[in-house]
Amino acid sequence: MAENVAQKLIRSHLESGELAPGNELGIRIDQTLTQDATGTLVMLELEALGLDRIRTDLSVQYVDHNLLQTDEKNPEDHEFLRSAAGRFGLWFSPAGNGVSHPVHQSRFGKPGATLIGSDSHTCAAGALGMLAIGVGGLEIAMAMAGEPLYISAPQIMGVELTGTLPDWVSAKDVILEMLRRHGVKGGVGKIIEYHGDGLKNLTAMDRHVIANMGAELGATATVFPADDAVRDYLEASDRADDFTRLEADEGAEYDLTDTIDLSQLEPLIAAPSSPGNVTPVREVAGADVFQVVIGSSANPGLRDFAVVAQTLAERQIHEQISLDINPTSREVLADLIAGGWLTSLVGSGARIHQSGCMGCIGMGQAPAVGRNSLRTMPRNFPGRSGTDEDSVWLCSPETAAAAALTGKITDPRDLDMDYPGVRLPKKFSANRKMLVPPLEPEEARKVELVKGSNISTLPDFEPLPDDIDLEILLKVGDNVSTDEIMPAGSRVLPYRSNIPKISEFVYIQVDDTYATRAIEHDGGHAIVGGENYGQGSSREHAVIAPRYLGLRVVVAKSLARIHWQNLANFGVLALEFTDEADYEALSQGDVLAFRGLRDELGKGTTITAEAAGRTFEFSHGLSPRQVEMVLAGGRIPQRAAHLA
Amino acid sequence: MAENVAQKLIRSHLESGELAPGNELGIRIDQTLTQDATGTLVMLELEALGLDRIRTDLSVQYVDHNLLQTDEKNPEDHEFLRSAAGRFGLWFSPAGNGVSHPVHQSRFGKPGATLIGSDSHTCAAGALGMLAIGVGGLEIAMAMAGEPLYISAPQIMGVELTGTLPDWVSAKDVILEMLRRHGVKGGVGKIIEYHGDGLKNLTAMDRHVIANMGAELGATATVFPADDAVRDYLEASDRADDFTRLEADEGAEYDLTDTIDLSQLEPLIAAPSSPGNVTPVREVAGADVFQVVIGSSANPGLRDFAVVAQTLAERQIHEQISLDINPTSREVLADLIAGGWLTSLVGSGARIHQSGCMGCIGMGQAPAVGRNSLRTMPRNFPGRSGTDEDSVWLCSPETAAAAALTGKITDPRDLDMDYPGVRLPKKFSANRKMLVPPLEPEEARKVELVKGSNISTLPDFEPLPDDIDLEILLKVGDNVSTDEIMPAGSRVLPYRSNIPKISEFVYIQVDDTYATRAIEHDGGHAIVGGENYGQGSSREHAVIAPRYLGLRVVVAKSLARIHWQNLANFGVLALEFTDEADYEALSQGDVLAFRGLRDELGKGTTITAEAAGRTFEFSHGLSPRQVEMVLAGGRIPQRAAHLA
Repeated sequence: MAENVAQKLIRSHLESGELAPGNELGIRIDQTLTQDATGTLVMLELEALGLDRIRTDLSVQYVDHNLLQTDEKNPEDHEFLRSAAGRFGLWFSPAGNGVSHPVHQSRFGKPGATLIGSDSHTCAAGALGMLAIGVGGLEIAMAMAGEPLYISAPQIMGVELTGTLPDWVSAKDVILEMLRRHGVKGGVGKIIEYHGDGLKNLTAMDRHVIANMGAELGATATVFPADDAVRDYLEASDRADDFTRLEADEGAEYDLTDTIDLSQLEPLIAAPSSPGNVTPVREVAGADVFQVVIGSSANPGLRDFAVVAQTLAERQIHEQISLDINPTSREVLADLIAGGWLTSLVGSGARIHQSGCMGCIGMGQAPAVGRNSLRTMPRNFPGRSGTDEDSVWLCSPETAAAAALTGKITDPRDLDMDYPGVRLPKKFSANRKMLVPPLEPEEARKVELVKGSNISTLPDFEPLPDDIDLEILLKVGDNVSTDEIMPAGSRVLPYRSNIPKISEFVYIQVDDTYATRAIEHDGGHAIVGGENYGQGSSREHAVIAPRYLGLRVVVAKSLARIHWQNLANFGVLALEFTDEADYEALSQGDVLAFRGLRDELGKGTTITAEAAGRTFEFSHGLSPRQVEMVLAGGRIPQRAAHLA
Repeated sequence: MAENVAQKLIRSHLESGELAPGNELGIRIDQTLTQDATGTLVMLELEALGLDRIRTDLSVQYVDHNLLQTDEKNPEDHEFLRSAAGRFGLWFSPAGNGVSHPVHQSRFGKPGATLIGSDSHTCAAGALGMLAIGVGGLEIAMAMAGEPLYISAPQIMGVELTGTLPDWVSAKDVILEMLRRHGVKGGVGKIIEYHGDGLKNLTAMDRHVIANMGAELGATATVFPADDAVRDYLEASDRADDFTRLEADEGAEYDLTDTIDLSQLEPLIAAPSSPGNVTPVREVAGADVFQVVIGSSANPGLRDFAVVAQTLAERQIHEQISLDINPTSREVLADLIAGGWLTSLVGSGARIHQSGCMGCIGMGQAPAVGRNSLRTMPRNFPGRSGTDEDSVWLCSPETAAAAALTGKITDPRDLDMDYPGVRLPKKFSANRKMLVPPLEPEEARKVELVKGSNISTLPDFEPLPDDIDLEILLKVGDNVSTDEIMPAGSRVLPYRSNIPKISEFVYIQVDDTYATRAIEHDGGHAIVGGENYGQGSSREHAVIAPRYLGLRVVVAKSLARIHWQNLANFGVLALEFTDEADYEALSQGDVLAFRGLRDELGKGTTITAEAAGRTFEFSHGLSPRQVEMVLAGGRIPQRAAHLA
């Protein structure tokens, strides 16, 4: 049978299950990546699992999130990660090397391979023809321990691209168009595969832009073929030998289809405060802008900076603008210097920041209250910038540069100039020396983990009781993101290795009484959510911290994939209303009474509970393997029970 | 009479008083500089004074301290400062332009002129033959309003330099040698004037290094002649027309003298946690180093970065090192790119941060607890890095580069290589476009101040009562710095425009009960200090915040100059023990009973108080002008009373 790229990737790594929607698949994992904000927990999990050495082909620990060292916590996390990478046999990419996803693509990405990462934008590597999935940290730890990744078999959505992008329109506008059409849950349960003639004009880094923000669609993964563009990219990255061609067979089919004529696209922008609020730039043109930020894994390519430099060249940014540039990586910074683009940006008035995620994860670069900030980043959830009442817009580098010049939201086609033709170098800078390779096993065993005072061990999690009464301590609406459940930002991220401390921040922007009420409430509690509950980043802290506070059950209209998986991993039962209208019938303060949970979970896919004087029915979607895990209190106690 | 440079500078600007030690002098001020951490208060003071337009030749508001925007507070301060600069007729240097002192030297420094700045390192401009003094913010506001600066006439200490610096020894080692000889209070009450043949081999930027850290000696100012080196510097900075020769007359004499033979110096380092703990590098060589930071106003010259780049060239930094580079300014960054040095630093493994003060003021770059961090910065007071139990050393760029290579404190002469010969460009980059010039008066009057929610107006300060009983709420030891009184760092600095909030942090590292005890204690209180009380930065928050908490009197063995002035400006009576041994006789909890203060202050220089069953005698050193000011509750209520 003619196969598409996604099917080839899955079949070549399938260890269990059948590739038909709804089945649980076990997929062999070749590579993992972890970043510092999630990686400290992963390393603690490896320690808890008693792992001697990782069993993946390649695992890399990056430091790119917590780069603002305002006290000892972040540098001590970095040192812990360095020691853990040494101990367990990982590569280590220290602070200053840059954002994990583009660095991984540049140094380690490999067509045909599987990659999971404890960062939701891991999917960016689909640009090279990889099956790349963002998952919770514990999934990574288990993959490093040699276990397959278990996922629910996705539908495969084929998006045919035709035509060529017009001037002033670039890859970011393609993914913004996808978000305009399908919204922030349009990709849930799907792998999105791009194909068609339009691919010819999209470089591997353009594809990275599109694959990266597949996370914002809620997609399990995004895949592109490994074609000539990927070959050219690997050659330019001094890694021609790592190229393998991987393309869909003639006549391959998809479960769902869509088509985008690139030539018909125009500059788009996501208005505050969701990546799904997409509108043409021209419709919001004229609004005052005070900040423009260029960088992040959503627009990490050399081109994405060069086009800004050339648009601004020989001119000054508008007086009220702070133009913040986050060079993606050491390599991109070197190329920006070599091409003369950095000089141009500096001369035009940019602030050049260290390489890393920076403002994208609320690590600095917060805007003033209500002042429009245009960013080439992937997310604009409320408060993610660090400013609670922020006004952050997401757009292409072209649209961002136009605003930097004019001080207003501006359709870049209205700039009175020709579209700059960016000429990229034939060879990109390649710096392998700053990547610390894995130690040989005998050396690795001698390494001691260096734990600063802020690094706490994981709390113990108890099994789920058979009968349990859970008061609903919080009821929230649709599309609640993991940023709202567990904020990032410079105030919170330094506690990523300290569960008791970080739990104080759970839901702080939504209801700042929740954490206190929860920790003081005995016997556990429940949360009620709307649609797409837990969208956004892969952070398992958004589960572990509320679980530490006593969360045992989430009931929602629907759940985002990674968050759902994380809930199961840490023994929180995640349920969906079988009748969405029942959402209205539950209120904060109601008590959900579950009886005979083990029996019910063992029997079928529905669960009942009494509350507010009537019976509610929910579905759970857990595989038998996952049911066992949830009942055991999560994957770590489950494994401990097996070993005992 | 043959005059030295300091005397010429003073006489040419003398508005009142006689130039003899101990007299109060009124000095006409040509230029002022303010930075963002102190400038917001200065602008609020201008507003409180009802000033329409500044009367100085030139005043510049810089944004270089609070660059980590972790929420809305810092960007809103920046916007307030931009609006205030527009309103009152200042130049404005936005975030990204770099550190105030070197930028001011490069764009505005002028031989023969006077400059005061609300930053203790303002003295760096003495490198150009200016009389440059760091003072409290209120002094700046008054100078902008056209008033002279009042200072106690200093002694002038002539330091003759002879010979030439050996390889691997640079200007930083000259000022470290001064600190080794004279300690952190060796400059108190003095202007230090460098002269002699050794000057020939010190560029204007080398002199900046030496003048800058005159602040660490406690000196009122540091002056160099405006000679050929200054002419060369101004020519290279595209400002040849601003050169005026200013040299000591033949036979000029000094109140005090010292001599340094540059050829006899060796690499020096200030050990934790005082700039006065100076020792030869070789004596502490071999200690593990985890961080190296290059930057700040203490080593801001292009050379200071280039010599690091060339020492590391084609090699990698040691694996355990984080090499943090803070390019001084937009101009230095442009020159680092043009000279190939930035490429070299990036290749060797450096993290390139935004231009500004950064780690020098605890804005990021904090080290791990107890891990040695070598910095080219001017200060290593405990906790200033952001990490309470830090271990920060101060050294030259050469010594810093050696540690970056080896991972250990290393005498750079022990590197197996030739001393890199740095060839500076004939012309430095000059970027005037990013400096916002003053508005014309009619335009300026239309500007409204933009006040974010974190910008509070100044509290009211009451007159000092005639009779007052003050409990001693805190007793501290020698050399307490303003960093200990009012910490900087990323947690505290954002509240620099919010006195009630920032007062919660007063003395938090020394005694975290002080602020709470003070605000709850009615009727005011006193603090007892040792020698050199209030050394360090010029921050007037170290007075306003404790004054807000009820501080009315400080008694100490001796007081640092700027802090003493700030205390008087805000109505706190600062007293010195006439018998230092009495320090031992006072304890926390004792009550100092002052009777007939107005009468005593009016009559002479001594003040008595009853405490612990006996009488204590203190001296005050206030001029009649200052006595009136302190009794009125400070300079602002005094001026209000005059206007009423």
